[in-house]
Parts: sequence; structure tokens; C-alpha cells
Amino acid sequence: MAQEIQKENNDHLVQSSDPEHPANLIPDLCRRFYNWGWVTGTGGGTSIRRDNHIFIAPSGVQKEMMKSDNIFVLEFPTPKYPPSDRKYIRKPLDLKPSACTPLFLAAFERGAGCCIHTHSQWAVLVTLLVEREKGPNAYFEISNIEQIKGIPRGKGKGMMGFYDTLRIPIIDNTAFEEDLTGSLEKAMEEYPDTYAVLVRRHGIYVWGDDVVKAKTQCESLDYLFQLAVEMHKLGLPWVKET
Amino acid sequence: MAQEIQKENNDHLVQSSDPEHPANLIPDLCRRFYNWGWVTGTGGGTSIRRDNHIFIAPSGVQKEMMKSDNIFVLEFPTPKYPPSDRKYIRKPLDLKPSACTPLFLAAFERGAGCCIHTHSQWAVLVTLLVEREKGPNAYFEISNIEQIKGIPRGKGKGMMGFYDTLRIPIIDNTAFEEDLTGSLEKAMEEYPDTYAVLVRRHGIYVWGDDVVKAKTQCESLDYLFQLAVEMHKLGLPWVKET
Amino acid sequence: MAQEIQKENNDHLVQSSDPEHPANLIPDLCRRFYNWGWVTGTGGGTSIRRDNHIFIAPSGVQKEMMKSDNIFVLEFPTPKYPPSDRKYIRKPLDLKPSACTPLFLAAFERGAGCCIHTHSQWAVLVTLLVEREKGPNAYFEISNIEQIKGIPRGKGKGMMGFYDTLRIPIIDNTAFEEDLTGSLEKAMEEYPDTYAVLVRRHGIYVWGDDVVKAKTQCESLDYLFQLAVEMHKLGLPWVKET
Amino acid sequence: MAQEIQKENNDHLVQSSDPEHPANLIPDLCRRFYNWGWVTGTGGGTSIRRDNHIFIAPSGVQKEMMKSDNIFVLEFPTPKYPPSDRKYIRKPLDLKPSACTPLFLAAFERGAGCCIHTHSQWAVLVTLLVEREKGPNAYFEISNIEQIKGIPRGKGKGMMGFYDTLRIPIIDNTAFEEDLTGSLEKAMEEYPDTYAVLVRRHGIYVWGDDVVKAKTQCESLDYLFQLAVEMHKLGLPWVKET
Repeated sequence: MAQEIQKENNDHLVQSSDPEHPANLIPDLCRRFYNWGWVTGTGGGTSIRRDNHIFIAPSGVQKEMMKSDNIFVLEFPTPKYPPSDRKYIRKPLDLKPSACTPLFLAAFERGAGCCIHTHSQWAVLVTLLVEREKGPNAYFEISNIEQIKGIPRGKGKGMMGFYDTLRIPIIDNTAFEEDLTGSLEKAMEEYPDTYAVLVRRHGIYVWGDDVVKAKTQCESLDYLFQLAVEMHKLGLPWVKET
Repeated sequence: MAQEIQKENNDHLVQSSDPEHPANLIPDLCRRFYNWGWVTGTGGGTSIRRDNHIFIAPSGVQKEMMKSDNIFVLEFPTPKYPPSDRKYIRKPLDLKPSACTPLFLAAFERGAGCCIHTHSQWAVLVTLLVEREKGPNAYFEISNIEQIKGIPRGKGKGMMGFYDTLRIPIIDNTAFEEDLTGSLEKAMEEYPDTYAVLVRRHGIYVWGDDVVKAKTQCESLDYLFQLAVEMHKLGLPWVKET
Repeated sequence: MAQEIQKENNDHLVQSSDPEHPANLIPDLCRRFYNWGWVTGTGGGTSIRRDNHIFIAPSGVQKEMMKSDNIFVLEFPTPKYPPSDRKYIRKPLDLKPSACTPLFLAAFERGAGCCIHTHSQWAVLVTLLVEREKGPNAYFEISNIEQIKGIPRGKGKGMMGFYDTLRIPIIDNTAFEEDLTGSLEKAMEEYPDTYAVLVRRHGIYVWGDDVVKAKTQCESLDYLFQLAVEMHKLGLPWVKET
Repeated sequence: MAQEIQKENNDHLVQSSDPEHPANLIPDLCRRFYNWGWVTGTGGGTSIRRDNHIFIAPSGVQKEMMKSDNIFVLEFPTPKYPPSDRKYIRKPLDLKPSACTPLFLAAFERGAGCCIHTHSQWAVLVTLLVEREKGPNAYFEISNIEQIKGIPRGKGKGMMGFYDTLRIPIIDNTAFEEDLTGSLEKAMEEYPDTYAVLVRRHGIYVWGDDVVKAKTQCESLDYLFQLAVEMHKLGLPWVKET
């Protein structure tokens, strides 16, 4: 693959003094996510699309220490190569691209501007509780909590309401992160309005129309997962009984 | 509504080098509240009254990223217009005013100098536990905990004592935040000494005579709610049995 | 009492560019304690003795915002005046002295160099669990946890060992903090080797030969209280059964 | 032992403007570990090997306040002297060497580049739960959690897979930290692929080929211990039943 990297390696694509530039935003976001415990131990990842470029955090680095120089860049739209042939237009020579890349691409192909992947323990616990309580094909659902209003009802459909029931699909984990792509895309088709997919025993993928929406939706979901775990401990049902 | 905004837009009302100016304090407070998990996912809000002006955090922004320039200003006293006619004397053109505005106004009309709205999970869990244990019309109550002394007994009545029972009313949530105004005002009338109202499945409104009092009362209440949830997990009653 | 304040008010006693000066250390410590949740809502306090001066954090201020200028200074040894006659050699004119003062003095009279008072929720929960499980006169005890080695066995007796059982006396809370003095002193007499006294439904007083020892002993105790609460939730006994 | 310290004391060994120098990295890591609650109350420690030098955090200091000047240096390989004869080539005159030293050496002799010792409460709780549920000779084990992939399968064997079962040996605590050396080395022999050993009622030793690997493996393990404790509270088994 090394020969595919352009000589100049397009370092200018990740060099900007603008704090809102994706190559600056990704390290800043990862530092914040690390402090919430979402991406410790090199877990998780983040990707931003801007115009015809996709900026991606690398694999296996300390997320709170990331630098702009560590960012990979792909062209968008990206031809559906198998991962081994994926052509990065900017690639840090000493780092591996994120195994989340095809999953991020699935979100971008559906119009996302930013996609966040966390290993939040609240998300993992919620997937385990749903599996035990409702079976392997069940989704997470919660209703009548104000924070639900932080999640969109679907593209161009406004935000959810307090009385709505939020449903987040859960897919099974796989040995290799890339192999999640098929089931993630299937969940996106079955839940065309969702902005997130939980991965059992693993974490969550959350996306949004832009960076702020992806980040705040990720925060609202994590709030709901933490609340749901505490509610379960206290014997409180997630969906209000009527 | 755009035509109602004065041309000059009174930007000077939110520009000050004084860190104690409300337009500087609100972003600072919101950053702190974000780190406690009270206003993640754009939830919650804060408002300060100074002389005949009310300064209000905008709706739907990342609370930890807020800038003075994002602050709305209303005249006080504020005529009781319906929300759509509410006249801001300073309004960031790209932002929406907070849906909490009429609730903040209710506190200011009762003499508050600052009002804080959080989505604290401890507050939400407490409302759910009270509902299940004591029914939909019950209030939260706790006694014989030192931190209760951080809550005033009522306007000009000094602080609560260790042996006092603190009671915080709980109102039902509504689909639209503005629609809470009626029941919030009713709770304020029924509990004329309260400095806080819990909103079931939503969070809390806390106010105080000034910014420091509102903030420290909010901290004391959140401490008590967290303690109450942990006490419940351990089978410890909130009100000391005698 | 105002007439007792010396005209010059000895402001120089709290003005130093040395970060290790008590008037600089107290605000720094309080900021750290606030971030652990020990002194939110203006709760708790800290006092340092240096030579013949005692430096004390004021009452009722935001602990994370404290400044050197807010510090009270007492002479040491301090004559046993009733609180209303206590003579501060340096007194911020706009602040109230801490109600913890006589309790801090009790520690200093026993040779402490620093005394810390927190409202730690773990400490409060431990006092409630001990009361329910072992009765109103019982102490907290825990054994066979490495962190016990962070607590001294008594003045000049070295540190506790892993197999030792740490015991911390618990006194009943009173309506006014000053009124704790008698039972605190009684607990100090009954447990002459203790460096801490828990106050039921209130928090803890921890002291040490110097600032570092008081702070690290406070951290070790809080670690043990948090662990003890989690052990109780999991049905694990605090003292190892043999 | 004082006479063994070379006059010049080799202060240059801990003086560097390179933030990646071990004498700068150790204080930086300890500050981070303190904020996770792993080394409060002077507990825990960290050591880094570089070329033929071992850099070690001192005993009994506030870990978040450590300075490069506080670091001990040993030659590597280190002759197996009894601790009292151990010869430091750089030694802060006012500090005691860490009791963890022989345990760190055991890791370095097996090829580690960095070894971290924490008193993480999650680690302690996991050792207590394993002892009660499976007996005193049992190890910790967990499977089918994505974060397991943050732990190596063994030297040169790549990382663990999602379906693998991670096993961490648990050794009994001893009165003196040095006395753990024998059982730590025995556990390393019995589990030649492990990068960590839990110490019952005490904490954990984690090592890695270099600083980044030790730190991120420590984070991944702590994530798994916290998750395991929460899973236990919720009645969820640690190893997936098949």
C-alpha cells in the first residue's frame, strides 16, 4: 500500500491555524471524549467529513494525545474498495488507519458530517441488559425523559418529543471491526431515522449532520444510557408504563 | 420577530471586561455545570438578572462552548407577552432564545437574581423514586443531613437547620418547556419558601437571591439528590425515623 | 466584635508570593477538594497552623473560588474564649469566621499542623451504614485493605499495617457546628491514636502533623469509605472474617 | 546506605527538557493516574526503563505533585541484592525509594519498558468478588467485551481477540510490599503471557513493552474491572455463557 501514498503526502490537508478545521477538531474532541471515559486504552474513534474530504483519527493511539499530524484523509465519495486497497490521500507513515473507517463511511454515505465511535461503559451495559431482558434481536428503548429531545426524529423531521419512545438498534459484535459494516448498514436501512447504532459488548456509533450535532447527540445518548443503567439498578422501567 | 430587533442590537449589553458581568458569568457557569454533567447535550440553561436587565443563555448550543456574544437580554420587569411576541433588547441573530425563558422570569418576578436549570441525573432519578414510592403528587423530602443547611428556609428567614425536613416540590413534565410555566408558578405559590422546583423525568429549576446563592444552592441540592439515590440503593430512608 | 479588629488588620499575614504559605495553600487545597465533591455548596473547610498562627478558610464562601485575602488568622495557642469573644488577629471584614474553628483548634491543641473538614458523601454513607448495622455507638472499621497503610497508627507510632483494623470513631451531629466540639474532644480522648473523627450524617474531620499528611490521610480515608460503600453494595464485609 | 550514594549524585540523569524523558514522563503519568483515583493518598507508583537505567517514582509522596528531581535511578540489569543493599545511582536525599522496586524489576527482567502500580478500587473490588465467588486460588476472567482487544495475547503474539477469554492472575497481599516479589514472579511464570498481576485487597501491577503500551493496557484493564463490577451489580456474568 505504501506505493499508493503520494510523495508529497498532502500534509497541507491537516495543517491549519483554524481551530474549527477537522484536523484540529478531531484531536480536541478525542481529548474531551477521553475525559468522559469513552475512548480510554486507545479505544473508539472520530471522523469528520468536510466538502470532498474525510478526516479520520488513526488506530491504536492514545486518543487524548492525538495531534493534527496523526490524521488520515480520504477522498469523498470514496470508491467501495476492499479495505486493503483503500486509497488515503493523506496518511501518517508511522500509523495504521482506523478499523472503524468503513463504518464511518457508511454514516457519511447517508449524509452525516461527523461520526463518533465510543466504548462508553454505559452503552455496553445497556446492550447487555437489553440482551438478557428482551433477547438478542431487541433494540434499546426509553421514553418520557426530557433528554430524549436532544435526539433528532430523523433527517429533516425535527427533534424527538418528550412523549416519544427513542429506539436505538443493537447489532452483534464481530471479531474484526470492519466486519461490522454489513450489519451496521442493515441496521441503518431498518432504522432509516436513527442517528446511532449500538454494538453489543462493544460500544456505539453516533453520527450527525455536523460536528456539533454528532457530539451533542452522543452526549445525550450517553446521558440516557447512564440513566437507564441507574434506573435498572433501582427497578425503574425504561419505557413509561401507561 | 426579526423586525423587532433593534438595528444596533445593543451588543454593548454583553460586552464587558468585568468577569463578574452577567454576560461573562453565564458562559463561565455553564462550563462548570457541563463538567458536573448537568447540561450536556445542550440541555439546561442559566439566567441572571442585573438591575433592569435579564441575561439568558441561548437554546440548543453546547453549554461548555458558550460565549458572551451568545447571550440574550430582556428588559425587566418584562411585560407578560405570549412567547412569540417577547421582545429581546439584545438577541444573537443566529440563535434561538431559551425555551426556559418564562420559567426563569417566574423566578425573577419572585425576587431571584439568578436561576439555573439542570438535567442532573440525580434530580431525575429522585423524581422517579418519589413517584414510585409516594405517588404522583408527592414532594421530595430529606432530613438530618448537614448539607441541608446550605438551603435557605425562605426569603429573609435564614438557612435551614440540620433537624429540619427539606421539601422540594415536583411538577409533571410537559411536551414543551414553556408549558411548564403554569405548574411551576403554582408550585411556587404552594411552596412560597422554596428556592427550587423539580420537574419529573426532566431535571430541576433552582434560583437564588444572587448568582453565588443560586449556584451554591444548586450544588447543595444536587449533593442531596445524589446522596438520596445512593441511600435508596442501600435501603436507607431519606427522612430520619424517630 | 468589630472594635476588636486591629486597625491595620494585619493583611500582611495573608500576603505572600510563596505557594507554600498557608494563605496560598488553603485556597489551592479547597479548589482540589471541591473537584472531589468534598466541599461543594460552601460546605467543609480547611485550616493550617504555622508557628504561632492559625490560618482558617472563611464560612459560607464558594470553596473553589477562595482567595488568600479571604483567610482568617488566629493566634496560637488560642485562649479558650467563647466563640463570640474569639479574637482574630486578621479578619476579612466582609466574611464570617468558620463555625469549624473550635473543632480545628481541638486538633491543633493535640499537635496537628493542618485540619480538613469535608462533607464527602462516602463518609456520610458510611456513618449511616454503621448506625444501621451496628448501632448508634459503633465506630467504622475496615481491615486487610492496602490503603489502610496510608493512615498512621498514632503519633510517633509509624503507619498502620495491612492486617491491622482501622477504626474511626463516629460522633452524632448537632444543630450548630460549634456544639460538636465537646464530643469531638471526647472522641479524641477515647481514641488517642486517631487522626480522624466521622460526624454522623455530616462528614469528617481529618488532621495530620502537616499539610501533606492531613491531605493524603484525608484521601486515603475517602478511598476507604468509597470502597466500603461499594463493598457493602456487593455484600462484602468490611472486616475480613477469619 | 548513605555512604553508597555517589557524591555528585548524578542529578543530570533526571534533568532533561525532553518531555519524553522518563524523569519528565513519570511525574506527568502520576498526575494523570491521580486524577483517575489510582494513586491517591501517596499510593501506587510508576517506573520506566530506558537503555541501562531504571527510573522510579519515590515512596510516600503526593503522586500528583511529583517533580523530576524526586526520581530515583537504578542501573539495569540490577544485581539481585537484598533491598537494603540496593545501589541507586541517583537518589533524592530526602526521599525513600519505592517499596515496589523489586516488583518493577521483576517486570523489567521479563522485557518490560514500563511498569505501573495502581490502587484502583475497581481492581480491588474485582479481587474480592473473585475470592468470594470462585475461591482464593482463582484468577479474574472476562470474555466477549471489545476492550479485551486492548490487551496483548503475549510477547510477539499480537493482541487478544473479542472472543478470547482474558485471564489475570491474582496473588495474595503481604504485610510488606517487597514480600510480594516471590508470588509475583511465580504468577509471571505460571502466566507467561500476562502483562498484569492483580494483588488481592491491594491493586494491580501492569507492565508493557514501552510507556504507551503500559499506560493504555492499564487503562483497558481498569475499564474492564469497572465494567465487571457494574456487571456483577446487575447480575451479568463476566464470561459469556455458551
